[in-house]
Amino acid sequence: MPALLVVAVSSEGRAPAVVGVDEPVVAADDLGLTRGDGCFEGLRLVRDADGGVVVPHLEAHLARMQRSARSLDLPDDPAPWARLLDLAAQEWAASAPRAGEAAVKLSMTRGRPVSAGDEPQPTVLVTVSAMDAASLRARSAGISVASMTRGYAADAFAGAPWLLGGVKTLSYAIHTAAQREAARRGADDALFTAADGSLLEAPTASVLWVPEPGVLRTVAQGDNGILSSTTQHLLFDRARSAGWRAEETTGTLADLRVARVVLLTSAVRGPVRVVRLDGEAVSQHDDAAALTAELQELAGF
Amino acid sequence: MPALLVVAVSSEGRAPAVVGVDEPVVAADDLGLTRGDGCFEGLRLVRDADGGVVVPHLEAHLARMQRSARSLDLPDDPAPWARLLDLAAQEWAASAPRAGEAAVKLSMTRGRPVSAGDEPQPTVLVTVSAMDAASLRARSAGISVASMTRGYAADAFAGAPWLLGGVKTLSYAIHTAAQREAARRGADDALFTAADGSLLEAPTASVLWVPEPGVLRTVAQGDNGILSSTTQHLLFDRARSAGWRAEETTGTLADLRVARVVLLTSAVRGPVRVVRLDGEAVSQHDDAAALTAELQELAGF
Repeated sequence: MPALLVVAVSSEGRAPAVVGVDEPVVAADDLGLTRGDGCFEGLRLVRDADGGVVVPHLEAHLARMQRSARSLDLPDDPAPWARLLDLAAQEWAASAPRAGEAAVKLSMTRGRPVSAGDEPQPTVLVTVSAMDAASLRARSAGISVASMTRGYAADAFAGAPWLLGGVKTLSYAIHTAAQREAARRGADDALFTAADGSLLEAPTASVLWVPEPGVLRTVAQGDNGILSSTTQHLLFDRARSAGWRAEETTGTLADLRVARVVLLTSAVRGPVRVVRLDGEAVSQHDDAAALTAELQELAGF
Repeated sequence: MPALLVVAVSSEGRAPAVVGVDEPVVAADDLGLTRGDGCFEGLRLVRDADGGVVVPHLEAHLARMQRSARSLDLPDDPAPWARLLDLAAQEWAASAPRAGEAAVKLSMTRGRPVSAGDEPQPTVLVTVSAMDAASLRARSAGISVASMTRGYAADAFAGAPWLLGGVKTLSYAIHTAAQREAARRGADDALFTAADGSLLEAPTASVLWVPEPGVLRTVAQGDNGILSSTTQHLLFDRARSAGWRAEETTGTLADLRVARVVLLTSAVRGPVRVVRLDGEAVSQHDDAAALTAELQELAGF
């Protein structure tokens, strides 16, 4: 698993500070711990050959964090993140002098319980971790995926904002259980389908496929509860500029089985090729490797 | 909100210890915090007039914790709880010399990330909190409840153990969002229904109703994903001994509207009468208060 490298934290009015990676930072009654009550974003720190540190697509991630916070009735001011991220990035750059990249997570919990009517005092955390070796390997070797139901109808989230569709919450127990189920089936990751078999998303990635040369598809949001993927939106914009027809639509496992290439895409791992789906080879057309490389480059990986 | 009184904690081989209630106990990458990946139990410490401290129905709660842990592929040995609970109970008894009760929570997270193949090193916590004033008030005054969909079909959990039906996980963001939605509608708590309108459970309680004198009903588990309620099982056993017909079955909101009394029941708050459902008065028969008192006493409240 990725080693934790840097933690920057602020809670209950405490000034932003870098703390030791083994130092406990959250109290026993913090609602992020007791209820998974909070939200997060995953992104990258990238250090170029000149030593400059950048956070690709930070604005898009902060905008999604703001939407998640609003959906949870949490403070949605993006300002505190800048200082914490800056602290964390400086610390990482000082300890990792070579060009490279690291995984960053921004997390906000509802903090400790307050009396009714009082404003929550969120706990705010930025962590920097070493890139997971499996993620790096996946970019070149691809991954195997096991499909499984998410249990919901494809329109289950219509008119029910308390179900938190599209909100990147800290309550990911089902997401991690699905990944353990995938491992039991010999696969590297899971892919969720709705009760009617329509495609949704992976636990921490969105699914893309190329049904024919020059056409890129993903699952449209709507009432299906899936997340808006920052990496997918960015890739679709760039792919359109590069002449692709990029469509947000619906799909099934059958569409993936015959696609020229199938990808899972997320902010840290980037687009990775799905080479096996439920034990059967996929993305094995002659141009699958070239298409993967092209789409990875368009996405900035 | 209930004030935190005592924290006893053990993690990564650290010996069980009581720590300060404001002391951070969980690292930034603990999977309980980052993924809501873990499980918990809520129960009571009760101090009688002689100063003895008891934990009602501890065995039933430890058995459910064991089932939750197994479902999450976490260590399921109940032994560590005894020492932690003992530490916490002693500390509470020393600081709260009068007869009374307190809310206890046992929590286990997957701990910090480990390398693939390594055993997780769970973080194990016991907290003791002051009884919530609203919970105490609810026992005598009853509560108002707002119904809302849980989004799942009534059989959504069949053959899909990764959906964690019946597992008391730390991923309760939807549960707390439902309670905020209930508050927005002017109610004290939420009541979940399945997509077909059948009754499920409240976010942290099960629903019981008395359709006619001498008959007690609740929602049967099965493929609907609801928790097995320790307090409901205990109450049903005792009610049967007292001559009630107690049935685990299915029901709808219409059944609740015409019931002689409707109760939500949980381990800390005990059975409390639902006096309004979606803005309409319920449990208003002449014998509703007497039935509530009888069932509260049977349940040990």
